[in-house]
Amino acid sequence: MTKTRKIVLSEKEMPRQWYNLAADIKVPPFMSPDGAVPPEAWAPVFPMNIVEQEYSTQRWIDIPEGILELLNRWRPSPLHRAYDLEQAIGTPARIYYKNESLSPAGSHKPNTAVAQAWYNKQFGIKRMTTETGAGQWGSALAYACSLVGLECKVYMVRISFDQKPFRKLMMQTWGANCVASPSNETQAGRAVLAKTPDTPGSLGIAISEAIEAAVTDPKGESRYSLGSVLNHVMMHQTIIGLEAKKQLEIAGEKKVNVIIGCAGGGSNFAGLAFPFVYDKMHGADIDIIPVEPTSCPTLTKGPYVYDHGDTAKMTPLVAMFSLGHSFIPAPIHAGGLRYHGMAPLVSKAAKEGLISPMALHQIECYEAGILFSKTEGIIPAPETTHAIAAVIREAKKAKEEGKEKVILFNFSGHGLMDLTGYDKFLTGQLQNYELPDSVIADNLKEIEGYPKP
Amino acid sequence: MTKTRKIVLSEKEMPRQWYNLAADIKVPPFMSPDGAVPPEAWAPVFPMNIVEQEYSTQRWIDIPEGILELLNRWRPSPLHRAYDLEQAIGTPARIYYKNESLSPAGSHKPNTAVAQAWYNKQFGIKRMTTETGAGQWGSALAYACSLVGLECKVYMVRISFDQKPFRKLMMQTWGANCVASPSNETQAGRAVLAKTPDTPGSLGIAISEAIEAAVTDPKGESRYSLGSVLNHVMMHQTIIGLEAKKQLEIAGEKKVNVIIGCAGGGSNFAGLAFPFVYDKMHGADIDIIPVEPTSCPTLTKGPYVYDHGDTAKMTPLVAMFSLGHSFIPAPIHAGGLRYHGMAPLVSKAAKEGLISPMALHQIECYEAGILFSKTEGIIPAPETTHAIAAVIREAKKAKEEGKEKVILFNFSGHGLMDLTGYDKFLTGQLQNYELPDSVIADNLKEIEGYPKP
Repeated sequence: MTKTRKIVLSEKEMPRQWYNLAADIKVPPFMSPDGAVPPEAWAPVFPMNIVEQEYSTQRWIDIPEGILELLNRWRPSPLHRAYDLEQAIGTPARIYYKNESLSPAGSHKPNTAVAQAWYNKQFGIKRMTTETGAGQWGSALAYACSLVGLECKVYMVRISFDQKPFRKLMMQTWGANCVASPSNETQAGRAVLAKTPDTPGSLGIAISEAIEAAVTDPKGESRYSLGSVLNHVMMHQTIIGLEAKKQLEIAGEKKVNVIIGCAGGGSNFAGLAFPFVYDKMHGADIDIIPVEPTSCPTLTKGPYVYDHGDTAKMTPLVAMFSLGHSFIPAPIHAGGLRYHGMAPLVSKAAKEGLISPMALHQIECYEAGILFSKTEGIIPAPETTHAIAAVIREAKKAKEEGKEKVILFNFSGHGLMDLTGYDKFLTGQLQNYELPDSVIADNLKEIEGYPKP
Repeated sequence: MTKTRKIVLSEKEMPRQWYNLAADIKVPPFMSPDGAVPPEAWAPVFPMNIVEQEYSTQRWIDIPEGILELLNRWRPSPLHRAYDLEQAIGTPARIYYKNESLSPAGSHKPNTAVAQAWYNKQFGIKRMTTETGAGQWGSALAYACSLVGLECKVYMVRISFDQKPFRKLMMQTWGANCVASPSNETQAGRAVLAKTPDTPGSLGIAISEAIEAAVTDPKGESRYSLGSVLNHVMMHQTIIGLEAKKQLEIAGEKKVNVIIGCAGGGSNFAGLAFPFVYDKMHGADIDIIPVEPTSCPTLTKGPYVYDHGDTAKMTPLVAMFSLGHSFIPAPIHAGGLRYHGMAPLVSKAAKEGLISPMALHQIECYEAGILFSKTEGIIPAPETTHAIAAVIREAKKAKEEGKEKVILFNFSGHGLMDLTGYDKFLTGQLQNYELPDSVIADNLKEIEGYPKP
């Protein structure tokens, strides 16, 4: 065949270690009113083998055999060369994408879900609890718990629970117990329902419920799980970038110029980008671009502050870019990009100028999603279209400059469960949202007295 | 790693030829009132390069480079060893499955869709028309047309069009024009609407509309496409079984004992099984099992007759097992298994005793689907659960007999677009349907005067 469209690694070529950027970038500690939060304070929330990873500054961490076997159910993921997209743009750039949509849950989320489930199982935990917004993370954890033999309880934001029944059905098919949040099963949920029985719910409330359910288990056999933001989650995702490096080498690419991923909490971006951030810290000339929506411009418009990870202020303070924990996102279709904060490691990398954030409007992103579907043939998740739109911008720039750049991006998930957004776009019902500066300023008043990182 | 869960082929190892069972099994000709239908009679319906394949009795047919390149976008597909399913059953059997769910449309259908689109393009055709029931085939053809640059028109049975909007949205995202059938755009559609404006539509009506739209194109630039039943479609799917053979060899399996696939029109079953039917004809001792629902027991209860392929009797007579062209299927969730007939080649293989059909109730199939989801981690399409249920039966039999059998089945598609069936099952709302013999006898009265194959 004349064109090699995808580079596939064998099982044996799968990376055996995760890369931990915390070895190379120092992030300020989690803070509570008593000062820096020590590892042991997390004991009721996470199993200690995961807490240890969260605090680790070791550069390379071995992936246990048991987790490699779980990952191997669908990994290594292919690296595709986007010949048809290149041709449609008429760019001299060579565009590659790492296809994370082939996991059974349809996104990159299972990379950390199976690792977390395995560590919980090792630690003797019987039940994991978590929250989910649109359902990508909840379904990934349901999948992982099913494989290792753990119970799984998912608090799903009520409006998504009612409007997006398919993600809930995925979780149930994998045996998870998924309830609408706020629920009657927790004190946090009951308190909200007492005040506002008709509330659509929020990620903040769902987090509170999931943490409460874990820490109040009378047998102490439950723990909570988070699908993004934290250091250990970023690290579990680095298998994406580490595989991509091997595949680019096989493709004969000696140098990559641009790395792109969409960024909500930061995990798919970090997974692809962090191994390249290391290269950049050691002299490589690479543009590394996290892409966010203009409706939730955390990295591009938020300040670098200490803020809570959740609306209900249950979490310690985290040093990160933030739009304020009381931020209420616009109803855009990229549900995974609507988080007010950003992973501490991604935030610090941005603060240090190692990565160059970009914010895009959703209509440009859907246009990119349609072009990608028609050329490369895979329908991207609404989140993923943000990465693709940025790729198209960079490829056009390369065309204007007449440069043979190599662009690599993360195809974080497919859009088969999120086609209503495409429907709205194709029928002209979508609009762009730009978060006004005044709203950000208002939100940030709430955290004025907080310590500074 | 201790366990190799999947065997992956490189692009270079992809088969370069299709296997054509018509070289080894003779099927009776298509019949019209004028006698056997000659190839040239199909000219207004299909491009002649495809008609040539339909009539070919050459055993091996080269796959053109252009089609290999299209297939390589997602192929070769992995062969998985189902360790966890084996363990759950406690069987000494070794179970393997070919994972056809990783195509961008989520099933095996694109294997023939890209081939047909490529041949149409080569022949100078500008627009393909087809019908679709639940939408699997329509979305596969929309995908293929998008890649090769053809217009695509899909007539989708109205009740599915209204109740299953996601498949329609997939087609639209890939640029296809999908309308509810009956439509106002064809004579056939208008005639039905005039009589029964509220009709839910049927596959028979949709076929009539799609054929009419192709043959009445004033520029002669349109052709019709069928996603199953015909010889060339079966042949395009044999890449599944040919890849599986290479992969079993890599896995160290010298012999396979049981081959299983679900069967509606027959294409995913044929794709996996036909290369092994060849082995069986040459002395191999293999049980080859097509699995159908008890609600549509074509091979297990229908007679081998000449019947029309569609309800509206637009097609010539086809020699096949049939429940009668006026058969109205029960509303089971495996929409792809509700066809009244069966591919002529599959039918003839059954008639000659080369394959051993089995019919199963849908509740047993959903139970199998849940077990598979929880052990192997991939949620199967309702159609695919029929194959899995039969695999579980065979694996239990091997346990009783204490035999180390090798069982191979086709995982024809994922169930992410069809989760409502799982919902009904999990909430106890599903029932079994068994087609009464009297209904079959009634249907068959209509074809009493037809010639006999």
